Amino acid sequence: MSRAEPIPRSKENDYSPEQAARRREFASAKTGARLETIGSFTIDPAVTRGNIENFIGTVQMPLGLAGPLRMAGEHAQGDYYVPLATTEGTLVASYSRGMRVISECGGVKATVVRHSMQRAPVFLFEDALQARDFGAWLVSEFEAIKAAAESTTRSGKLVEIEQYPIANMLYTRFCFTTGDAAGQNMTGTATFAACEWIKAHHPLRPRYILSGAIDTDKKHSAMNMIQTRGKRVIAEFILKREIAREILRIDTADLYRYRQIAAVGALQAGSAYSGAHSANGIAALFIATGQDEANVAESHAGITYGQLLENGDYYWSVTLPAVICATYGGGTGLPTQRECLELLGCYGTGKADKFAEIVAAVVLAGDVSLTSAVLAGDWVTSHEALGRNR
Amino acid sequence: MSRAEPIPRSKENDYSPEQAARRREFASAKTGARLETIGSFTIDPAVTRGNIENFIGTVQMPLGLAGPLRMAGEHAQGDYYVPLATTEGTLVASYSRGMRVISECGGVKATVVRHSMQRAPVFLFEDALQARDFGAWLVSEFEAIKAAAESTTRSGKLVEIEQYPIANMLYTRFCFTTGDAAGQNMTGTATFAACEWIKAHHPLRPRYILSGAIDTDKKHSAMNMIQTRGKRVIAEFILKREIAREILRIDTADLYRYRQIAAVGALQAGSAYSGAHSANGIAALFIATGQDEANVAESHAGITYGQLLENGDYYWSVTLPAVICATYGGGTGLPTQRECLELLGCYGTGKADKFAEIVAAVVLAGDVSLTSAVLAGDWVTSHEALGRNR
Amino acid sequence: MSRAEPIPRSKENDYSPEQAARRREFASAKTGARLETIGSFTIDPAVTRGNIENFIGTVQMPLGLAGPLRMAGEHAQGDYYVPLATTEGTLVASYSRGMRVISECGGVKATVVRHSMQRAPVFLFEDALQARDFGAWLVSEFEAIKAAAESTTRSGKLVEIEQYPIANMLYTRFCFTTGDAAGQNMTGTATFAACEWIKAHHPLRPRYILSGAIDTDKKHSAMNMIQTRGKRVIAEFILKREIAREILRIDTADLYRYRQIAAVGALQAGSAYSGAHSANGIAALFIATGQDEANVAESHAGITYGQLLENGDYYWSVTLPAVICATYGGGTGLPTQRECLELLGCYGTGKADKFAEIVAAVVLAGDVSLTSAVLAGDWVTSHEALGRNR
Amino acid sequence: MSRAEPIPRSKENDYSPEQAARRREFASAKTGARLETIGSFTIDPAVTRGNIENFIGTVQMPLGLAGPLRMAGEHAQGDYYVPLATTEGTLVASYSRGMRVISECGGVKATVVRHSMQRAPVFLFEDALQARDFGAWLVSEFEAIKAAAESTTRSGKLVEIEQYPIANMLYTRFCFTTGDAAGQNMTGTATFAACEWIKAHHPLRPRYILSGAIDTDKKHSAMNMIQTRGKRVIAEFILKREIAREILRIDTADLYRYRQIAAVGALQAGSAYSGAHSANGIAALFIATGQDEANVAESHAGITYGQLLENGDYYWSVTLPAVICATYGGGTGLPTQRECLELLGCYGTGKADKFAEIVAAVVLAGDVSLTSAVLAGDWVTSHEALGRNR
Repeated sequence: MSRAEPIPRSKENDYSPEQAARRREFASAKTGARLETIGSFTIDPAVTRGNIENFIGTVQMPLGLAGPLRMAGEHAQGDYYVPLATTEGTLVASYSRGMRVISECGGVKATVVRHSMQRAPVFLFEDALQARDFGAWLVSEFEAIKAAAESTTRSGKLVEIEQYPIANMLYTRFCFTTGDAAGQNMTGTATFAACEWIKAHHPLRPRYILSGAIDTDKKHSAMNMIQTRGKRVIAEFILKREIAREILRIDTADLYRYRQIAAVGALQAGSAYSGAHSANGIAALFIATGQDEANVAESHAGITYGQLLENGDYYWSVTLPAVICATYGGGTGLPTQRECLELLGCYGTGKADKFAEIVAAVVLAGDVSLTSAVLAGDWVTSHEALGRNR
Repeated sequence: MSRAEPIPRSKENDYSPEQAARRREFASAKTGARLETIGSFTIDPAVTRGNIENFIGTVQMPLGLAGPLRMAGEHAQGDYYVPLATTEGTLVASYSRGMRVISECGGVKATVVRHSMQRAPVFLFEDALQARDFGAWLVSEFEAIKAAAESTTRSGKLVEIEQYPIANMLYTRFCFTTGDAAGQNMTGTATFAACEWIKAHHPLRPRYILSGAIDTDKKHSAMNMIQTRGKRVIAEFILKREIAREILRIDTADLYRYRQIAAVGALQAGSAYSGAHSANGIAALFIATGQDEANVAESHAGITYGQLLENGDYYWSVTLPAVICATYGGGTGLPTQRECLELLGCYGTGKADKFAEIVAAVVLAGDVSLTSAVLAGDWVTSHEALGRNR
Repeated sequence: MSRAEPIPRSKENDYSPEQAARRREFASAKTGARLETIGSFTIDPAVTRGNIENFIGTVQMPLGLAGPLRMAGEHAQGDYYVPLATTEGTLVASYSRGMRVISECGGVKATVVRHSMQRAPVFLFEDALQARDFGAWLVSEFEAIKAAAESTTRSGKLVEIEQYPIANMLYTRFCFTTGDAAGQNMTGTATFAACEWIKAHHPLRPRYILSGAIDTDKKHSAMNMIQTRGKRVIAEFILKREIAREILRIDTADLYRYRQIAAVGALQAGSAYSGAHSANGIAALFIATGQDEANVAESHAGITYGQLLENGDYYWSVTLPAVICATYGGGTGLPTQRECLELLGCYGTGKADKFAEIVAAVVLAGDVSLTSAVLAGDWVTSHEALGRNR
Repeated sequence: MSRAEPIPRSKENDYSPEQAARRREFASAKTGARLETIGSFTIDPAVTRGNIENFIGTVQMPLGLAGPLRMAGEHAQGDYYVPLATTEGTLVASYSRGMRVISECGGVKATVVRHSMQRAPVFLFEDALQARDFGAWLVSEFEAIKAAAESTTRSGKLVEIEQYPIANMLYTRFCFTTGDAAGQNMTGTATFAACEWIKAHHPLRPRYILSGAIDTDKKHSAMNMIQTRGKRVIAEFILKREIAREILRIDTADLYRYRQIAAVGALQAGSAYSGAHSANGIAALFIATGQDEANVAESHAGITYGQLLENGDYYWSVTLPAVICATYGGGTGLPTQRECLELLGCYGTGKADKFAEIVAAVVLAGDVSLTSAVLAGDWVTSHEALGRNR
């Protein structure tokens, strides 16, 4: 069998418009596809260096504006207009409806309650006893290991090494705070440095593999739910009974009853999220703002909790244990993505917690809208009216 | 507290360049952010009707070309060049490396083994016995219910109603095949019609809610892993020992050993995916081709299985139980997204299974590359070299 | 290293008092332990043939009587006195308290809603396509396979073969109804016969292993929660507000609120049971009645669901998806165990569903008592008073 | 509806033979059941005070002797004869077979790698921020809280308070070491004392409930798998290739291949244990030795890990993250149960880790036997021959 032709690359400058054109022409010739709109980008290919390889153009994802969303978070305070990039009709409208309700009720409180980004090397030993003793050594040498890890990064701080002994191995999680970056790369480098220090200093010179698969990077896990990955964030507001009736056409008592039914459904299904639909808002906001879109896998996990208050109002919250986001590094500096972050006042250093609060608030708004639509029985019909996406 | 100003909308035509500009100006005035690149889109806003509301422009996501990827699937056969939209440096290069290895080994077999898209109404009763009897009635009236559901759709077919009795309720899953659409909306409408038929014909006129939360739409779940959501797809190839050594710099025996270690890590962590990183490739391919990007939450779930063969080669497979994708409807018809589908020969009717095969093959390629990089110890360093994303 | 001495056995009759004594003497000589009370059994060792090997005596487990428990089940109706074998102080008293409350409220409705006992062979193929085609063949040949399976048993009926394709394998679950037996052995034999028939008749003569580990025998699993193992049983009653106040010293509104808190806790923890403590009652009732005590692992799984009614009463239910029990075979015929079944009117044929209803009712009673104790704040103190178990 | 008659009790002495007889007569009169063998116990009812209420006699569970089992644990060393109480035919024989294999291979290494028993109060606040700040206070006041908790117990030591913020609540786990007791009651009392101290000293006087349902007592959970409950124990041995062939009639290469197949099955099913059957041995050993039999729910969880060595031998291990056991308190002091502990040299203080090592070793032996039987294809037939349990 003959090999297919490789994609053209340039060793000099692979991020020029010409190189992109050359690859598009190559692909068109091979497949017969016309790649005109892909090639009609308006950003400078040079800015994508470090974000993509074999650049051929851009995907233009429609961007809608949702809001206003009133926030009374620790960092995010005031009224926000939220850019959402999506191709799912009704999504922006639905989130906007939720934001309106929340804003009318006084806004969202949002709080980042924990920071922890991990790499998870596994160390290999003769037997479990050796692994356990090594674990004790890790505790006693923590300060030196921390120093080795932090020598590679300005913003990453090693705060803990979790230990999970299995068989003759010690699975670990090196947990860091990472400033305004999501931090997967930073923690990879720092953990590698720590492991090399360990290998050099422990008498057994232990073998290790940099991932024992319990990070758990780019995947949902029970570990993430329990131990946090990225940021654990909580958003909460009080839905006023009157506003629920007027805008959402539902009664808070029905809402509360439905919460039991949906919670039981989530348990039966073994769902990663016990509310209506965290992933929609997270994906749309992540794409708009240059987050790593694969992190939707982890970030969509969460727990919804509601309580009917004595006056008939309804306390509504979402707790997201694994929000992975950044306001610096990765895709955040790309032209359109950076503008979206700036729209939220979230570009650059010192903004990551503020952004995480907005993520959780957006999720809450989406749940307010969809849950109410399901309850009010107008879910199918609104999709029919707005989403003519064929 | 005064209300924030609402986002400007036009009742006549909300999808014009002028309306988009008016909203950008509004947002800039409110926030001080400049929205120039967002406004420098090159698609006609009119085509986004049905995909977005409050359109203000587009996000330009860098698009890279990975491949060639040789496939020997049931539907996808030959060499493919795969468009990936991402902002994560090294991702396209890494997937390309995996594709090269797979292609050198003769290509990927990929097979769609099940189709099932659901809506999941819950029916409410006096007690469990009534719910159980209602369940028996659902079975006996299946043909009529199927007719009611299918009256609303040309391509959707109701194939089964799963039943999960809890307390005095019957949680159900209405399972459909949906042709080339992902089918969430189609099945919503069809299930609604079925439920109304049921309500009208069952003597108890049972109350129901259209979602009992076990669909489980836009979220990972054990239910999805077990019962399939969308398509269940398997990709497999034989990694030749020599090629592993030459290109990946690893030995297949080490790879096999590491498989045990990673599988145990996945069990300890309770991970949704037991391989290296399904979400990266899925997210990048989904965004490029106009899939619903939130479905990464479900679609990234899966199981990796490997076996060392007697000749030292290594059988490697991924099984993805919840791939949700479309080649028709949703965002697939948008200009850049449609071109990406056409690049794969996957736009339009009769292409969904072919596309699903490619999705699984891409995931496999990504795992080949990253797993080997972790094993060979060059994972951190390649990120350092390629991903200068700050 | 020399081998330790083997345990004495007799080829003629290993179930005599003399053999038991001989083994006790052997063990005493080796360890210095006196085994007097173990040897002071009052059952005939001959009756334990088929239930134990290397018989040395009996463990005498204290048996307490709980109740009366009023039932309004489909099969179990009237007032029951429930034998519970346990060594945990306060357990019988606590369950009795719950039973009293339930009885005062009119009794438990209990319903068996599904029967399904499995063996789960895995079939091995060249690739996923072959496995998928084999799956289609299983469907088309179902009647013949069923006949082969049922040729080995009078009471077992093959009702379905579930299919889970992974990699180049087809994992299956052969689902049976098993009459009054728990049925693990019966279904093992029947599935083996079915597999041999398959191997002889399918053109590929497929290799198989009798357990692909998805039965999931003697272990909790998401599969059991979703697909049922043994019997899926629901118990429900209406807790009257007044009785809650008088006997339990709690208000039903607080109870309802606590339900949300505990449900969220169960989600956070990833618990197999979302109520208070199913395993206590199940273990005690299983040991008393000669059930396989290891099945507590599966049977304790479940979902609690409550709803505050408009009059202030509280609907309370437990749904147990994997109750594995028998009224015939296994340990049910042993002298003391049989008497315990007879005490419930549940010994012998035609009684298994009745017994399963009682199991669920007992679990509900235990949750009523413990949940209320936690809420009323008297949980610690009652353990202090009754459980002086040192 | 008239009330059923209550069970007779005596305020003076409820633990006399006469009282037991009176209750049996009462139950017989009500149900028609003869309770002769239940009444033929040979222990003094007085010794069951603190372990049971409404005593009516004993269940006599057949006790078999398995072994010899050679151990090279940290605490358990030498050859052991293991008492197993069960009614499942073939179980003792099967475990004995596994023990023989392990012993021939040089015995089991077993290691307790972590101790942690919990109570899990939840604290209620106005909002998430208040809950987070309270969490910081818990950290700063740890020593005082520890002192309050430990004032109630001699052997319990508070080592950590884990925090899980959800909504406006702080779910906690108070983690203790508990000496030779299982410690559920001890930690309940100590945590209650700690909570009362907290309530008295924190400025908000926070409301709390003693169980937020994340303990997770008497139920399997992901939390237990990850965070340990009771003891985390690992057992391991090297299966020699020759012995596998001779005694087990299997090849270690097949065993290794099957490990992949079963691990993937466990992932698909979402099983609490990834080996063959931990619950059988644990239940039988727990009943024999007076452990809380309901703890099989937690203790059966675990991970199997194997590795084919270069010489063809096979490293085999089980890791049990939630073994809950005691050598003091609870049912351990009852006559027959105490004798079983003494048979293992495990009665009384200072023996709990030794006993936990034996538990893990027994589980490993059971897996060796059953896994091999499944592989060798003789699983069904051995059940047929030995288990004539009807």
